[in-house]
Amino acid sequence: MNNIQIKDISKYLGQEVSIMCWVYNKRGSGKLNFLEIRDGSGFTQVVAEKDSLTADDWDLTDKIGLESSAKVNGVVKKHPAKEVYEIGLKSIELLGVSHEFPIGKKEHGPDFLFENRDLYLRSKTPWAVLRIRDQVFRSITQFFFEEGFVRFDTPILQPTSCEDTTQLFSLKYYEEAIMYLTQSGQLYLEAGIASLGKAYDFGPVFRAEKSKTRNHLSEFWMMDAEMAFFDQKASEDLQEKLVKRIINDVLTGCSKELELLQRNTEILKKTVESDFIRIKHFDAKKLVEEKYNLKVEYEDDMTTEEEIIIGNHFNIPVFIEDYPMAVKSFYMKSYTDSRNMLRAINADLIAPEEAREIIGGSQREENYAKLKSEVVKRNYSLEDYNWYLDTRKYGTVIHSGFGLGLERIVRWLSGVHHIRETIPFPRTTVLKKP
Amino acid sequence: MNNIQIKDISKYLGQEVSIMCWVYNKRGSGKLNFLEIRDGSGFTQVVAEKDSLTADDWDLTDKIGLESSAKVNGVVKKHPAKEVYEIGLKSIELLGVSHEFPIGKKEHGPDFLFENRDLYLRSKTPWAVLRIRDQVFRSITQFFFEEGFVRFDTPILQPTSCEDTTQLFSLKYYEEAIMYLTQSGQLYLEAGIASLGKAYDFGPVFRAEKSKTRNHLSEFWMMDAEMAFFDQKASEDLQEKLVKRIINDVLTGCSKELELLQRNTEILKKTVESDFIRIKHFDAKKLVEEKYNLKVEYEDDMTTEEEIIIGNHFNIPVFIEDYPMAVKSFYMKSYTDSRNMLRAINADLIAPEEAREIIGGSQREENYAKLKSEVVKRNYSLEDYNWYLDTRKYGTVIHSGFGLGLERIVRWLSGVHHIRETIPFPRTTVLKKP
Repeated sequence: MNNIQIKDISKYLGQEVSIMCWVYNKRGSGKLNFLEIRDGSGFTQVVAEKDSLTADDWDLTDKIGLESSAKVNGVVKKHPAKEVYEIGLKSIELLGVSHEFPIGKKEHGPDFLFENRDLYLRSKTPWAVLRIRDQVFRSITQFFFEEGFVRFDTPILQPTSCEDTTQLFSLKYYEEAIMYLTQSGQLYLEAGIASLGKAYDFGPVFRAEKSKTRNHLSEFWMMDAEMAFFDQKASEDLQEKLVKRIINDVLTGCSKELELLQRNTEILKKTVESDFIRIKHFDAKKLVEEKYNLKVEYEDDMTTEEEIIIGNHFNIPVFIEDYPMAVKSFYMKSYTDSRNMLRAINADLIAPEEAREIIGGSQREENYAKLKSEVVKRNYSLEDYNWYLDTRKYGTVIHSGFGLGLERIVRWLSGVHHIRETIPFPRTTVLKKP
Repeated sequence: MNNIQIKDISKYLGQEVSIMCWVYNKRGSGKLNFLEIRDGSGFTQVVAEKDSLTADDWDLTDKIGLESSAKVNGVVKKHPAKEVYEIGLKSIELLGVSHEFPIGKKEHGPDFLFENRDLYLRSKTPWAVLRIRDQVFRSITQFFFEEGFVRFDTPILQPTSCEDTTQLFSLKYYEEAIMYLTQSGQLYLEAGIASLGKAYDFGPVFRAEKSKTRNHLSEFWMMDAEMAFFDQKASEDLQEKLVKRIINDVLTGCSKELELLQRNTEILKKTVESDFIRIKHFDAKKLVEEKYNLKVEYEDDMTTEEEIIIGNHFNIPVFIEDYPMAVKSFYMKSYTDSRNMLRAINADLIAPEEAREIIGGSQREENYAKLKSEVVKRNYSLEDYNWYLDTRKYGTVIHSGFGLGLERIVRWLSGVHHIRETIPFPRTTVLKKP
């Protein structure tokens, strides 16, 4: 007999197989029971006919509790019209009992599911979303390899607090000092490219932000890429290629998962085939003001509402370029525009369908004196930044980079509402075990 | 003119090319200067002849400081006998000056290099080791995909302190509570496999251990894999396949890097071709006692010295199986042996060449009552472990898993002495900036 995984079921049409699985749902009565089973690789249905089973086996299909584990043996059958396969049961063995599984058919509130996260993960939505997350991770890994990048794991524990300490988690490091949990590995990557040319990291980052919205996690995964000899234009072209690659891989590799999530993929398909929009920050503000009759602040960052409007307006990803330097980070290269405003040479990539910012990037200031004066102007500690300034002291080069938020892009692609759905055990301002 | 990367130089033999690079070494006198250059993708030599250059360009090749960045133009030439390519310089442009680069030709102590880590990374050894690390990471990612695993990022911030708190870093999490930095995601993965069947994580873990040895880091990268319906034997077979895959990929994908590190690859090649050794803990101790005349403690863990002896004895990787349960973790499945000792159903994989343990794994106790009694026996908090015990309450299944230390295996494969060499910015008990 073939021990198979559900993902391979179509290959065994007409054959007898056995599957190790969990029973996640059941219905039936009288002479027929239907068990919905899951083995991690997929889902299928087992049809149990009273007349073709032993009394014990029939009894088990009647009484088995949801989430019990079992070994089922039976023959693979196909729906006459659809590409749907099922198992005609011949025998069943109970492996691990389960009684009164806390998550049932009835609707549960998000709090209940959050508190029982370890059990909720067995549901179809997290199964599908986590598989999309896995695909996105692999696409990124493969893309950067093909583009000549080297993975460069930047440290989680950082001895200096960059920029704003109010959103940092800190801890005591042995007897010696305070360490901070990373918010970004970018500055370390900038040292790395002098060795490796093109480098990226991809790991957890932390933000102690007390916002309770569907957009916020205190622990999430961030990919930072940094490229020597790239200007902002070259960086944007690479970002566009990366995003298209990710979406294409998800559309082809996760069609089953997208279907299960009932994701309308029209805009994703359009995104793969279109050139991304590039618009200046000034023009984006103006568009919102003139076409949507909203009052805008030209010197401010894009607001949440404005990002959503821009995303909906174009319905494909949009690079919003050249933000006012005053609202952007000290390390960005800048220029003075015709209205005498200092502007960063940067872009945030806004995704449609209310997904908002999925990438932020910029060209970096490569001039030692200019970078140092920006550090001083912002009252950052020169002592802390000396090593970083050294990257400009010894053979500085034009370079650019960007950061991509994994959960942000997974939420967009999977179409789930809350960012919490996109990571196995979310960390938010409300502490939940486990 | 072709703007090329050094890795592609052989494709341009006889052609004029330009390369953006750093000058990492130079020599010469009179009428010939030799600049050793690096662009991240590789290394090559530029030959500057006084008679074929402008006075300014010749002067620049004379005076250029080490680690300056430059754009060099010239013709690709090949060494008559060897597969070595170089550039006959036609012109050179200085991009970023560098004067008195702190790391020169003279020998520096490890402390100096550690303190100037961001600059030391430009040396050839870290360049090669980090590229091997990248290859190992990609091999693991690809292997698990091919084997049907889903990546499942377990949380870094964990609300409960598993086992021993003395080696945990802790931090204040908002106003609510203490969180601990993860030492392993295994328990979370065990919840994950009820959804995904086979799952793995691969991220940073932390150990507040005050050991200052060449084996210890306070922050390092760990891969945990967990498989539903796998017993320990199936798990060991998978581990052997994984390790062979990694080594094979490194031997083929990183031959240049291994050569640069002067790594003798004989034992690595033998490892790929051989069946790994499987030996019981009892027999391993006995071997050390009888063949090497050392006093051993049969009820203890393997010592560092014993692991090195076993590794050298076989000169290929060795699974040491069935440790005394008393020295192993509470979640391991166990049995009572013929000498009435409780033994874990586990194995540590010991690598040769003094690399010691690279993988630790076990079958997990799937029985709710037995697992609970082990938690109680060890005086762990039942409240903390309730969610974990739930994985056995609702459809428990036979399952096994293992953890692989990235830096441990990278050190072995690259042949560097200190584990510090295997990660870009090492965190040890001595705090060094950056």
